[in-house]
Amino acid sequence: MKITLEKISDILKEKDKFYILTHQYPDGDTLGSACALALALQRLGKKAKVLCSDIIPKKYDLLFEGLKKQNFDPEYIISVDVADVQLLGNKLEKFATKIDLSIDHHASNKKFAMQQYTEPGSAATAEIIYNLFKIMGVEIDTFLAKCIYTGISTDTGCFRYANATPRSYRMAADMLEKGIDACEINRIMFDMKSRERLEIERQVLDSMEFYCDNKCAMIYVTRDMMKKAKATDTDVEGLASIPRQIEGILVGVTLREKKDGSFKISVRTDEKINASSICEQLGGGGHVCAAGCSVDGDLNEVKRKLVSVISSFIK
Amino acid sequence: MKITLEKISDILKEKDKFYILTHQYPDGDTLGSACALALALQRLGKKAKVLCSDIIPKKYDLLFEGLKKQNFDPEYIISVDVADVQLLGNKLEKFATKIDLSIDHHASNKKFAMQQYTEPGSAATAEIIYNLFKIMGVEIDTFLAKCIYTGISTDTGCFRYANATPRSYRMAADMLEKGIDACEINRIMFDMKSRERLEIERQVLDSMEFYCDNKCAMIYVTRDMMKKAKATDTDVEGLASIPRQIEGILVGVTLREKKDGSFKISVRTDEKINASSICEQLGGGGHVCAAGCSVDGDLNEVKRKLVSVISSFIK
Repeated sequence: MKITLEKISDILKEKDKFYILTHQYPDGDTLGSACALALALQRLGKKAKVLCSDIIPKKYDLLFEGLKKQNFDPEYIISVDVADVQLLGNKLEKFATKIDLSIDHHASNKKFAMQQYTEPGSAATAEIIYNLFKIMGVEIDTFLAKCIYTGISTDTGCFRYANATPRSYRMAADMLEKGIDACEINRIMFDMKSRERLEIERQVLDSMEFYCDNKCAMIYVTRDMMKKAKATDTDVEGLASIPRQIEGILVGVTLREKKDGSFKISVRTDEKINASSICEQLGGGGHVCAAGCSVDGDLNEVKRKLVSVISSFIK
Repeated sequence: MKITLEKISDILKEKDKFYILTHQYPDGDTLGSACALALALQRLGKKAKVLCSDIIPKKYDLLFEGLKKQNFDPEYIISVDVADVQLLGNKLEKFATKIDLSIDHHASNKKFAMQQYTEPGSAATAEIIYNLFKIMGVEIDTFLAKCIYTGISTDTGCFRYANATPRSYRMAADMLEKGIDACEINRIMFDMKSRERLEIERQVLDSMEFYCDNKCAMIYVTRDMMKKAKATDTDVEGLASIPRQIEGILVGVTLREKKDGSFKISVRTDEKINASSICEQLGGGGHVCAAGCSVDGDLNEVKRKLVSVISSFIK
């Protein structure tokens, strides 16, 4: 059932013990939104706890400053930024049928909760939380501002993605006025790399090859490379954007070897070329500028298959 | 002599033929500010021209859309975002003593113009131009909005640096409402890399070494590496930020071989360590977190000198 922010405000004031669930592989928005909400509830004298199936990466420590650790049984369970119960992960899946309220900005939200607040126009769930705080009359201090800013900044790629709206920028401006060090937050969120990430990036740059009259760039990540770099799945996130960043490249391709030896392919294209059409020819699909598929075979075989399809799109 | 934005507005309305000078090695702010100003003046039926000593990199083409090419002799000469006549570069230095008005946001501005408007609190000169437009009653269309947004976004590192103020974010929000594609602008300004840049980055990552119990990371760029990558000075800009981005690194050092065979050293530090103090011991200086010096010797000798100084700072 749909619910308004006004009604949510009433419920939060009425209830006393809250669990706030985040999605697995947590990011700055699910954690920023959850920590902001928990902190505001604790300030109102209530008990509140942020839960996540995964270990929370150290870089998000700053979101938990000011939050007290409390042990209690929940009276009301809220999920934030969770589009589907599948995304709760192993540890939290036991709550799947018990979620009282879902607050989310994903248009694809599966409406799994008793009460549902979904606002797809928001760049981040943190924007919804900020609007909720306005209705609740929560005073935004530096701790809360850090959480809300982090949510907005991380989900918009530091205001770089198309989802950032004028409201996103203005809300960020409000947070800056609460005295946060946005520069330091962005440094931690965007500029910090693990040694493992650096090593895999180094190897990936070494792997780069150019095809189709230098209009297609291709990189690959094999399991051997990951082993050598001691890299985890988190360390290889976002590598797929590298080949497309090069001047003159219309199609950027990333090959990632899966456990079964086949390759997961990510294709990123200039707007002149349809990434989804390329991937459909190989049994995959996706969006106009970003799509994917899986291809069997050894590395050279997979490359050949890809180049043969891609060259028919680059004329 | 100091001048107000109101007085500047009066002069711009009164005069008819404007040269607008930008600084050498032009960036998004000097060009965005100049193009916005020139375009607004052309809209008022005046003649206006943007001048630069250097060839303008292709990525800034979007700022010149809508601007007509006009040939004329100037009646009034304005410099934007130029802190010192030295920065006009070779081709424009002939105007050094003839600049009627300087509009700038650098606190270090040398006050070289007849009339001077300096606002160091502005993250970008483009912010000043926007305020000037408000006073002049210039209607902001998509062309002008692109220029102003680009100025603010590039000078704040896409809202990442400490100079971005709430006003910067709010002005950017205003520009988004004029229908610009901020995502595409930021892609062009920040995500595009030349092949040469990519190649030098690849080599630089290969060069990385760790010292002082993995708390110091060092990279180097030799003239041979640049030659191999066919890289220009522009291609190696910003490399100095790479070593400090690695988790756990307190001191990031970049060595760049100069034409005379000596090395230009850039030191970036965590706030716990004073970069300037390190560089002072080697005859250089700078800021607390970013400093530089020059060191003579061959590569290994220079590395040894650096490690010996740095290790006394890392305890």
